[in-house]
Amino acid sequence: MTNPRKPLDRFHAVIPAGGVGSRLWPLSRASAPKFLHDLTGSGQTLLQDTWDRITPIAKPGRTMIVTGLAHEEAVKAQLPDLPEGNLVIEASPKDSTAAIALAAAILARREPDVILGSFAADHVIQDKKAFQKTVSEAVELAATDRIVVIGIEPTEPSMGFGYIKTGEALGISGAPSALKVDKFVEKPKLDRAKKYVESGKYLWNAGMFIAPAALLLRQLAKSEPALHAGVLELAAAWDTEQRAAVIKKVWPTLKKVAIDYSIAEPAAEAGLVAVIPGNFSWHDVGDFAAIAELQSQGRKNNLAVLGSARVLSDSSSGILVSDTKRMIAVIGLEDVIIVDTPDALLVTNKQNAQKVKALVDSLKATGHDEIL
Amino acid sequence: MTNPRKPLDRFHAVIPAGGVGSRLWPLSRASAPKFLHDLTGSGQTLLQDTWDRITPIAKPGRTMIVTGLAHEEAVKAQLPDLPEGNLVIEASPKDSTAAIALAAAILARREPDVILGSFAADHVIQDKKAFQKTVSEAVELAATDRIVVIGIEPTEPSMGFGYIKTGEALGISGAPSALKVDKFVEKPKLDRAKKYVESGKYLWNAGMFIAPAALLLRQLAKSEPALHAGVLELAAAWDTEQRAAVIKKVWPTLKKVAIDYSIAEPAAEAGLVAVIPGNFSWHDVGDFAAIAELQSQGRKNNLAVLGSARVLSDSSSGILVSDTKRMIAVIGLEDVIIVDTPDALLVTNKQNAQKVKALVDSLKATGHDEIL
Repeated sequence: MTNPRKPLDRFHAVIPAGGVGSRLWPLSRASAPKFLHDLTGSGQTLLQDTWDRITPIAKPGRTMIVTGLAHEEAVKAQLPDLPEGNLVIEASPKDSTAAIALAAAILARREPDVILGSFAADHVIQDKKAFQKTVSEAVELAATDRIVVIGIEPTEPSMGFGYIKTGEALGISGAPSALKVDKFVEKPKLDRAKKYVESGKYLWNAGMFIAPAALLLRQLAKSEPALHAGVLELAAAWDTEQRAAVIKKVWPTLKKVAIDYSIAEPAAEAGLVAVIPGNFSWHDVGDFAAIAELQSQGRKNNLAVLGSARVLSDSSSGILVSDTKRMIAVIGLEDVIIVDTPDALLVTNKQNAQKVKALVDSLKATGHDEIL
Repeated sequence: MTNPRKPLDRFHAVIPAGGVGSRLWPLSRASAPKFLHDLTGSGQTLLQDTWDRITPIAKPGRTMIVTGLAHEEAVKAQLPDLPEGNLVIEASPKDSTAAIALAAAILARREPDVILGSFAADHVIQDKKAFQKTVSEAVELAATDRIVVIGIEPTEPSMGFGYIKTGEALGISGAPSALKVDKFVEKPKLDRAKKYVESGKYLWNAGMFIAPAALLLRQLAKSEPALHAGVLELAAAWDTEQRAAVIKKVWPTLKKVAIDYSIAEPAAEAGLVAVIPGNFSWHDVGDFAAIAELQSQGRKNNLAVLGSARVLSDSSSGILVSDTKRMIAVIGLEDVIIVDTPDALLVTNKQNAQKVKALVDSLKATGHDEIL
């Protein structure tokens, strides 16, 4: 037997870049979803920020993007350093299991001992160093043949995230903060969320996980054998001239299922999942209220402005997003949300930010696809 | 002495169409002020509504418009029935005395016994019959050589209007509801406005008045002799080939003064002013809150929409004005005001509607003339 590689040398990042982010309509669109936008005012898109955050840990050429056909050109333009072989295009949306399992299967064929880390393309983490330290520890832990999630210390009883119930410390050298995961729990109601936070045993599930690709695929084989077979068939053809033909044959058959159900939860029940608490602030910028909070950073009575519009604001707070060249005047509104795009305008406030999704659903139901 | 004409045969309406209406920015602009817009959803502009309201009383060809050079073409387009000789163009803005006195002087040269009635171009009166009845009575009264104003029964202690303090009944046949005017009072504070309304002796000054042109000019000669001389010189040349030359010479010398100060108040002190109470609802649609109220007409929780925008509203109230073809979504906002134009967007609420003027003033002060 040859000397095994060090865990960090086995690490390969995967960034699934999907999801429209309909709570961010009319900024986020089917044609230009959330991750392709600068939602922080950093001058970079969320996808570019994610890339810059993870590539210092993954060795050069070891970050893969999985995205939809509609976004291929935008992703290439935004990430000029992305190797061509590391851009995986989904023929149609098949939910998170197919996206990540296909990446795992492609990478495992290229290097069987690969440790895959999956990171959403549309989250905001400002402390890169702390993030990288946490991921490094998670990679060490994953090398003990575990699925490792990153949990975030809750700062409030949020109803917008799933939670991770933590168990005993694992006491593993190289991963001193590792805890067992008792179970995953879905987005709770407020009273339950409060209990979770008070107990000190629950972390937010930030949707980041690190695991040997082979372990992920084994788990998938148990829970979704047909889907497992499908992604293996795709992966076998991926780096060959058969790719297109096999996609045409297999892709339509892939089951749509979230990776939480297909892999994470069953694996947690089987005692295979561990967590590294992430000691950094994390935002999923799920709606405009979250963006407004992120932008205001404690400044009260401040109207945050994203984009190039000329804005006149008189004692208003909230957020204004506009890339038009118009003059925009906002007078005396608290927590307002104004999103101004060439073909659509949204006006609401933080308290109603969550309702944007229902509005988009109703636009969809009434056939207004041109505006989605 | 020939038999005098009947009062109504002597009547000639004048519609001064000036004033930008800066509290209605960004809908009302220097280039397209309030009176050129449909603010009621009637399908006609305020100017057209005013024309349609007054022309059944004034005999055919007996309505005159006084407006600025910038609006000449728009006025002609909106009022195809306006005789060319009844369109008086101001070379530059010189306030209400010059506008109305010039109209009076031109008309008095054409027919010395003319009774002039002045009606703002940008007010809303829905009950045309009641309005016409009131004006007819005012014309009868004006024929007794009085300046007659139309007063509106206050429905609330408004701080936005001037008030008319009424005196004794005049007991004049043909004008049975005529009252003496004790004095005019300027826009009051709230506590004073409440006392006015409670007393039952005060009416809103709706800025409409009817008087023999000769009487108006006599009063002007006393209070502003230079201005009086100027408008007489202009009027003498008006229907001749000398018009342009005299405008060039005289117009720049005309004093800017509101007719309230130059004629109405001194005449009231001299006991020459009477009032006919107008038994109709009247709106000056001075700001977007007034338009919203006018539009909602008692319907609560209703977002009134003016214009052709496609609007999705979820339990919002207030007003939305847009002639763009955009999709506009409004979620959960109370008393909101949204005015969406191609180059400017205003978002505020009813409580702050009055602040739009200050905002426009600050745009003016900072040199943003292109947006005014």
